[in-house]
Amino acid sequence: MQPKDSSHLAALRFAVEYHLTGAEAQAREQARLICIDQTVEASDEVIPPGPIRDEIVGRVESFRRLDAGRYEAVISYAGELMGESGTQFLNVVFGICSLKPGIRVARLRLREALLAGWSGPRFGREGLRQLVGVPDRPLVCGVLKPLGFSPAQLAALAQQFALGGVDVIKEDQGLADHPFCSFTERVARCAEAIANANRETGRTCLYVPHVSGPWALLRERSLFAKRAGAGGVLVCPGLTGFDALRDLARDEAVALPILSHPALLGTFTAHEDSGIAPAVLYGQLPRLCGADATLYPIYGSEYAMSRADCAAIKEETGAPWGRLRPIFPTAAGRIGFDRIAELCAFYGRDVLFVLGSRIQQETDGVVRACQKFVEEVGRCLKL
Amino acid sequence: MQPKDSSHLAALRFAVEYHLTGAEAQAREQARLICIDQTVEASDEVIPPGPIRDEIVGRVESFRRLDAGRYEAVISYAGELMGESGTQFLNVVFGICSLKPGIRVARLRLREALLAGWSGPRFGREGLRQLVGVPDRPLVCGVLKPLGFSPAQLAALAQQFALGGVDVIKEDQGLADHPFCSFTERVARCAEAIANANRETGRTCLYVPHVSGPWALLRERSLFAKRAGAGGVLVCPGLTGFDALRDLARDEAVALPILSHPALLGTFTAHEDSGIAPAVLYGQLPRLCGADATLYPIYGSEYAMSRADCAAIKEETGAPWGRLRPIFPTAAGRIGFDRIAELCAFYGRDVLFVLGSRIQQETDGVVRACQKFVEEVGRCLKL
Repeated sequence: MQPKDSSHLAALRFAVEYHLTGAEAQAREQARLICIDQTVEASDEVIPPGPIRDEIVGRVESFRRLDAGRYEAVISYAGELMGESGTQFLNVVFGICSLKPGIRVARLRLREALLAGWSGPRFGREGLRQLVGVPDRPLVCGVLKPLGFSPAQLAALAQQFALGGVDVIKEDQGLADHPFCSFTERVARCAEAIANANRETGRTCLYVPHVSGPWALLRERSLFAKRAGAGGVLVCPGLTGFDALRDLARDEAVALPILSHPALLGTFTAHEDSGIAPAVLYGQLPRLCGADATLYPIYGSEYAMSRADCAAIKEETGAPWGRLRPIFPTAAGRIGFDRIAELCAFYGRDVLFVLGSRIQQETDGVVRACQKFVEEVGRCLKL
Repeated sequence: MQPKDSSHLAALRFAVEYHLTGAEAQAREQARLICIDQTVEASDEVIPPGPIRDEIVGRVESFRRLDAGRYEAVISYAGELMGESGTQFLNVVFGICSLKPGIRVARLRLREALLAGWSGPRFGREGLRQLVGVPDRPLVCGVLKPLGFSPAQLAALAQQFALGGVDVIKEDQGLADHPFCSFTERVARCAEAIANANRETGRTCLYVPHVSGPWALLRERSLFAKRAGAGGVLVCPGLTGFDALRDLARDEAVALPILSHPALLGTFTAHEDSGIAPAVLYGQLPRLCGADATLYPIYGSEYAMSRADCAAIKEETGAPWGRLRPIFPTAAGRIGFDRIAELCAFYGRDVLFVLGSRIQQETDGVVRACQKFVEEVGRCLKL
């Protein structure tokens, strides 16, 4: 790096808000060390003067008390360190300091000028609405499960969901490629069943299979799904890495909507003094990497998620952010009829409801239960 | 799945030891829910009787009290759910229950019969020792840093490390592909510098560049590194997903030793009541997925890691485990001369010492400091 570049670099810094737990002096020292650990990771005396010390090492932009024993440090990094991959970016944000106690990533601050290499969601809220032909109410998503069902059983269930008028049918993240239910047979059968139902209803319900495995296989599966007629894919970035999401979103041959699933990510939000805040993990990161909808557990369920967390995620999915399209937040986690009114009031029209498994046991049957759920969702928004 | 398969399946189950925090009744209920959440993820009434309920749903094999408010549940899963990818396997182990409070993965129990699709480390301890020609003492690893150095500066440092007699030279995980230090120029120059030094010393010091990015790029970079003369690669599975590690280890075109780095993984070990125990995260998982050496912070440093954690990791890297070769545990995290004797006593001969950045400031110069470090490591083992 040339010293002449300094002013250019300074103009293109990005920042991370960290929450630090401990006494003030400790938190200030922690902030100073984050600047080093997340960049040069070297003892102070080894850092050469000049551009490395001035520009590469992170910079504490502000420091303030949040409450007893908790402080916020906003630390900026040279824009050139951000890179154009989720791997490299997350490494600067939290790679090494995830290993230390008392540090939490609370928010990312990325200005538009830094997002040039990040195209974000291919479809976003409006693109997804156009695909399913639903301009003005929350979307409703059925889930293919349980694991252990044969491809024929899953296809039969998929058909019922589609006849019931849901907008999206996603697979459970547990469905992978098993001896008793191979990926290819399952996807081919479910896609066919949903296409048949769509012809009957005149609607466009999207089939979203779960794609997993290492990147090459994940892409191969996504392309197979597309050829079979799938309308999207479900990806678990906690398992595959966030770059799998980003690459799939940018892949012109795939070019399908992507739903991001929180598998394995829960530990990052488990404690306030460590990890990554839900608004970043389920809001900013999936949107940055190109998910069109982000799944996470809803508040008030058995999962560890508060109402404030969900409000913050909702905010990050929709707030203006350069050219990154707004994406769908979700209401997921054993969602039944009892929570429709409350969650419509909370989210407004831009939310994807994920039906809990109990819909399979409704006395009217799955088709009628889905119809009622969609009607109810539409009705609530008119109130 | 056919009901006839049940006995076959039962013989091939794998198990996970979970630690559960809470009152006994709560922990028992938690164990029951893990069996469901990690497999069928459906309300009890939706789970059909027969093989799905009997074999697919997890099974509590044992339950016992550990101490006040902490219990251990050993839960087994059908072998067919394990699959042959890190993605699918980790999803069964911890995908959904990572989202709930009070659950920690304490140990994996995988019998040899289940490891057929998992070849594990290509080199392991003995293979790595043969490559560097060091049969009987701990290995010593220099680190190329700081981020911000030009390729020429890093190559000069690499040459000094190699002349100083270290066995391995790894790159800092912060080195990616930057405008001021491109991956290709850096790797070509460092590989050349180390090869020159090797000719001078007559030794085989391995150069281990950091490869990152999405999987396709990561593989491309690994192949570039190999062609340039690199002797291994450093991968961060917390950023890339564990399948990147597994695929690289099995890749016949790459066929290089792999060092696994803990970037972003720290949160999983931050609290005893959540996440994944260090022995699993830094011991069992990297070994299963094919790392030849596993990096993690040493106890007694500023990082959150205890002596017991490191002892447990050491145990998992070396314990007999089907055909999976033993791998190197490490002593990393600002390691200087002051900790050689203590850490040799702790680990014995099978450990990789990672030199802290202060070695760059030793008054004798890097070459002499490395020579002294290697000598000291050899001397301690004779005591």
